[in-house]
Amino acid sequence: MAGTVTVPGSSKPSTPLLKDELDIVIPTIRNLDFLEMWRPFFQPYHLIIVQDGDPTKTIKVPEGFDYELYNRNDINRILGPKASCISFKDSACRCFGYMVSKKKYIYTIDDDCFVAKDPSGKDINALEQHIKNLLSPSTPFFFNTLYDPYREGADFVRGYPFSLREGAHTAVSHGLWLNIPDYDAPTQLVKPKERNERYVDAVMTIPKGTLFPMCGMNLAFDRDLIGPAMYFGLMGDGQPIGRYDDMWAGWCVKVICDHLSLGVKTGLPYIWHSKASNPFVNLKKEYKGIFWQEDIIPFFQNVTIPKDCDTVQKCYIYLSGQVKEKLGKIDPYFAKLGDAMVTWIEAWDELNPAGPAAGKDKAK
Amino acid sequence: MAGTVTVPGSSKPSTPLLKDELDIVIPTIRNLDFLEMWRPFFQPYHLIIVQDGDPTKTIKVPEGFDYELYNRNDINRILGPKASCISFKDSACRCFGYMVSKKKYIYTIDDDCFVAKDPSGKDINALEQHIKNLLSPSTPFFFNTLYDPYREGADFVRGYPFSLREGAHTAVSHGLWLNIPDYDAPTQLVKPKERNERYVDAVMTIPKGTLFPMCGMNLAFDRDLIGPAMYFGLMGDGQPIGRYDDMWAGWCVKVICDHLSLGVKTGLPYIWHSKASNPFVNLKKEYKGIFWQEDIIPFFQNVTIPKDCDTVQKCYIYLSGQVKEKLGKIDPYFAKLGDAMVTWIEAWDELNPAGPAAGKDKAK
Repeated sequence: MAGTVTVPGSSKPSTPLLKDELDIVIPTIRNLDFLEMWRPFFQPYHLIIVQDGDPTKTIKVPEGFDYELYNRNDINRILGPKASCISFKDSACRCFGYMVSKKKYIYTIDDDCFVAKDPSGKDINALEQHIKNLLSPSTPFFFNTLYDPYREGADFVRGYPFSLREGAHTAVSHGLWLNIPDYDAPTQLVKPKERNERYVDAVMTIPKGTLFPMCGMNLAFDRDLIGPAMYFGLMGDGQPIGRYDDMWAGWCVKVICDHLSLGVKTGLPYIWHSKASNPFVNLKKEYKGIFWQEDIIPFFQNVTIPKDCDTVQKCYIYLSGQVKEKLGKIDPYFAKLGDAMVTWIEAWDELNPAGPAAGKDKAK
Repeated sequence: MAGTVTVPGSSKPSTPLLKDELDIVIPTIRNLDFLEMWRPFFQPYHLIIVQDGDPTKTIKVPEGFDYELYNRNDINRILGPKASCISFKDSACRCFGYMVSKKKYIYTIDDDCFVAKDPSGKDINALEQHIKNLLSPSTPFFFNTLYDPYREGADFVRGYPFSLREGAHTAVSHGLWLNIPDYDAPTQLVKPKERNERYVDAVMTIPKGTLFPMCGMNLAFDRDLIGPAMYFGLMGDGQPIGRYDDMWAGWCVKVICDHLSLGVKTGLPYIWHSKASNPFVNLKKEYKGIFWQEDIIPFFQNVTIPKDCDTVQKCYIYLSGQVKEKLGKIDPYFAKLGDAMVTWIEAWDELNPAGPAAGKDKAK
């Protein structure tokens, strides 16, 4: 079987590598020394590096990696006026990498994330677990108490309707973090010493109708199924808010996945998050988000996408209109964000001419 | 602090024992030798044993346990004509124990369940974990990716709305099983050798709006909050179906908890389930349920309890009417079940005169 590796002594193919079908997207402002630790796992893949901040600075990438690198000048050149939808001085810029990729799958990781160890002390191949998650179905319509029913040694429990056991295509695999947990600034300030030391050996589907806080630190997705909704919004330089890029994407993605009957998983794999960002700086970036989210969450909980929105693009354009109409009342920022959402889709479709056909029709 | 034990060398009280506030309900047809293994954990508590089958048979209970035992003659004597709502020759009879208890909390366990070990080899005190689960809030309104945010070493992650961090009162704690998983007959037949060996170190809230298969093998609940909905239906002798008692209760309970903004947790603690029941016998009991559930699940997914139903009893009576009206079309059994649901509530309120006041008002 091409593209797969087999475990010695086993006739069963292990997880496919998907090396021609997956790009790794890394937003950064510094030399990518962290890749050394990931070499055994990442070297087979193509990297898309999105350089944030000063474009005259040179980012060093360890030898032997296959990559393309885009700085702000490249983004401006490629997108022209539409570059306005890509954030600057915020890791939200990473979504430019999703747009220029031509692959089916994306894995994105922060440059302060390292290889974690499982409870037996073995290095965790995070990417392999993400691929497993993406290639097996999700179960968004009913809860399975023994967690992932497709995992070896597990199944659907008594009382799980047989008609729902085929599950749904998986669009997103949200991985977790050992060591520094992904806390907001207030929690960081209150619990500066808290570390996540608990390895929970589970992958869960987030049920249909339930929102979750999607973190962009360790995240994989099927670009064909959900790519155009993976917009990380307007954050950072010139914007009133930061550190809500992945949250914004997560709310939009989840609502659209629910509408298109696609699955979103969370849990394994873990990465080792090495360093807490400065809580004081974070508080400044987050504080508007902290009160805005009290309105944003009910907005996303209540939004209903019309039935005729049958592609991710159509869903996303519909959402952008609702954002302007409903959230625009909170702050003029949301009107600007709604426009940027439209610009994002226009830019996506320009760079991905088959774009409008994307969405659920391309599910394998 | 009365009713709690303290860890030597620690000033922090550990989980309260709740020994005057919790009954253990055990349905059985045999001598309760399995209690020997549970002695260190169960002996402080009062047991309510519901003897199923032949009432002339004597059930032996190991010495030193404080218990009351009810056989079919007792049930008939206590409930009179209303005893018709209590199943015979099916572990569904256990719900009689919930009704006669006068305590706030119930833990129910099957007599083929033994003490499991955690990954460090330590005996798991299942009851202590259930009490922890019941005494700490649930998070049904938004998903926390690091699982239980109230657990030591954990918290709410970035992006979790602050207004939702108080959570909801926990009504149900659903524990899991190592060794023999709770599979239906077809899965048992297909995978006779499958064993659950995976210890997932997590307690999760099942999100609002999501149904789950509730197993009665290892289950705790707050009787004041949800007791009247814990009816295990008409199963076994004289009924067309078996092994759906706990499922039925779970669907009703979840829909009512969602309506009353109460939480349902699943995950830890594990017990060791020793013996798979006979899959051929199970298939005979289950086969109607297996096709009926394809209609029952959408029924429960779509039912909307009116706002003025503000107690568990009112919600349950409303549900009983819907069951007769909507599910009665599938089979006359559901008309009978709908009537039995009403009888159950009448019997509950007779035995629990404060009954109508039960429900969310009694939340601490």
